[in-house]
Amino acid sequence: MINQLVQKIQKTNAPIVVGLDPMLKYIPEQIQAKAYGEFGETLEGAAEAIWQFNKGIVDATYDLIPAVKPQIAMYEQFGIPGLMAFKKTVDYCKSKDLVVIGDIKRGDIGSTSSAYAVGHLGKVQVGSRSYYGFDEDFATVNPYLGSDGVNPFIDVCKEEKKGIFVLVKTSNPSSGEFQDRHVCLEDGTERPLYEIVGEQVAKWGSTCMGDSYSYVGAVVGATYPEMGKVLRKLMPKAYILVPGYGAQGGKGADLVHFFNEDGLGAIVNSSRGIIAAYQNENYASFGAENYGDASRKAVEDMIADIAQALGK
Amino acid sequence: MINQLVQKIQKTNAPIVVGLDPMLKYIPEQIQAKAYGEFGETLEGAAEAIWQFNKGIVDATYDLIPAVKPQIAMYEQFGIPGLMAFKKTVDYCKSKDLVVIGDIKRGDIGSTSSAYAVGHLGKVQVGSRSYYGFDEDFATVNPYLGSDGVNPFIDVCKEEKKGIFVLVKTSNPSSGEFQDRHVCLEDGTERPLYEIVGEQVAKWGSTCMGDSYSYVGAVVGATYPEMGKVLRKLMPKAYILVPGYGAQGGKGADLVHFFNEDGLGAIVNSSRGIIAAYQNENYASFGAENYGDASRKAVEDMIADIAQALGK
Repeated sequence: MINQLVQKIQKTNAPIVVGLDPMLKYIPEQIQAKAYGEFGETLEGAAEAIWQFNKGIVDATYDLIPAVKPQIAMYEQFGIPGLMAFKKTVDYCKSKDLVVIGDIKRGDIGSTSSAYAVGHLGKVQVGSRSYYGFDEDFATVNPYLGSDGVNPFIDVCKEEKKGIFVLVKTSNPSSGEFQDRHVCLEDGTERPLYEIVGEQVAKWGSTCMGDSYSYVGAVVGATYPEMGKVLRKLMPKAYILVPGYGAQGGKGADLVHFFNEDGLGAIVNSSRGIIAAYQNENYASFGAENYGDASRKAVEDMIADIAQALGK
Repeated sequence: MINQLVQKIQKTNAPIVVGLDPMLKYIPEQIQAKAYGEFGETLEGAAEAIWQFNKGIVDATYDLIPAVKPQIAMYEQFGIPGLMAFKKTVDYCKSKDLVVIGDIKRGDIGSTSSAYAVGHLGKVQVGSRSYYGFDEDFATVNPYLGSDGVNPFIDVCKEEKKGIFVLVKTSNPSSGEFQDRHVCLEDGTERPLYEIVGEQVAKWGSTCMGDSYSYVGAVVGATYPEMGKVLRKLMPKAYILVPGYGAQGGKGADLVHFFNEDGLGAIVNSSRGIIAAYQNENYASFGAENYGDASRKAVEDMIADIAQALGK
């Protein structure tokens, strides 16, 4: 799947991923009203609004982009109906030939991580049959539990030719609280924890290589470009999923360091900046009814911004 | 909710929690056959088998125990039908007056952690109405993203009088890979990362105290009793959720250090050791058809083992 992701990025010339993180406040009134008209102001109504909203974004942008990244929390908050909308979104994006990165940030002890891996990337056995549960192409994984928690995902990735992105340095303001702590090494030197995790990602990744990049990638926030520069070198074969561009403050110029010299190696996420573009003054002229067109223009602008930053 | 948990532990005299982590291989043939007969060898069939199995365990043990801990991964692997069985299990356990600890190990950046917190512990707003999504009493939370990722859970806990257990030192063999790394401090000393996280748990917890313990607890594995001893002192007001007893190797005698002098402060989880007791040679005489009775006996033995270790 990492080969397919790289090919799609090359074909679209767009190292970007659209974050499908639909908060209700991003969804145009008319879509909410229609969904509530049909299902009431219920979890089912919210789920329908989310699904219709997503469909509009995907229909308006799918030919420009290689991938989407639905954030499962935004669906899970609406309980079972919300998760049904998540599944519907994953399936629809795959039918549009998009790579789907499930932003699930799971991670647990061995057998439990296995269950997550099977449920999101692989097939679960029921008697003599097997089924895909959510069937994303990639998943994000939390490394706090160490190799026991990550290896079960890698095992499923090998089997299914799928991939993961392991959290290394996250984009949020307090990510440094633990991730930036300096670790004392045996040789008397010290290094931040995120570098230790990054090195481990490179090790994990070396066991399952695609053509030029590994099935094991990393998450490094656009908001920390200097750290991105170091991590890029520590994990030369890891694709870096870069959140934090746009609404969180990361700029095109900050992104250069996340890419390798081949112009590959990073895929930049924007969520609110794309899906709620019509609420941004730059795109307000589209109006809420044309929110999909506003998102398309925001995607085009993001592609141009990154291309310029990369000197393309 | 922490007050209720403490009261229930005192009333049952059982500082234990039964981990409802139903792998299909633990479920007696006759339950699987019945479920597959009704729904086929499908995700729905697996979900039905899980639910019936859980119901049998709960019915056989609920009067002896204060709490259950369903591990959501074991349900999530069966997709939407699996998560419906999770929800059904949560609701049923609450109807039996059990405290439900959702073992979900979520954690993300601010707005996303908010969505998880709302979905699992709080209410989500849909238009003019609000709904509980999964409605557990407690949730486990991953600290890797720092305060941004944990505070949204604490906010919901304050509002809903619910609680969290933050991963500090997990029970798995490779937990030390990152958690045991020594962090260099400004004063020239060094301390393991789990202690740094533990101190932060104490800080987070000081902002939302119940009568004697905080709404913010910690997860520390029974498999690391010496570390538990240190962490007990660093987080005197945090309830410690202790996994790793039984099947993972933790013994009654190891547990003493996790408790405070008041005989409280820890709740010990056993999953496989209880729910699959009938597969263990000690309880094999019950037979698969009486798996609930085997679980009940295993609970009684676990309570006695811990009471003996605590010198009660």
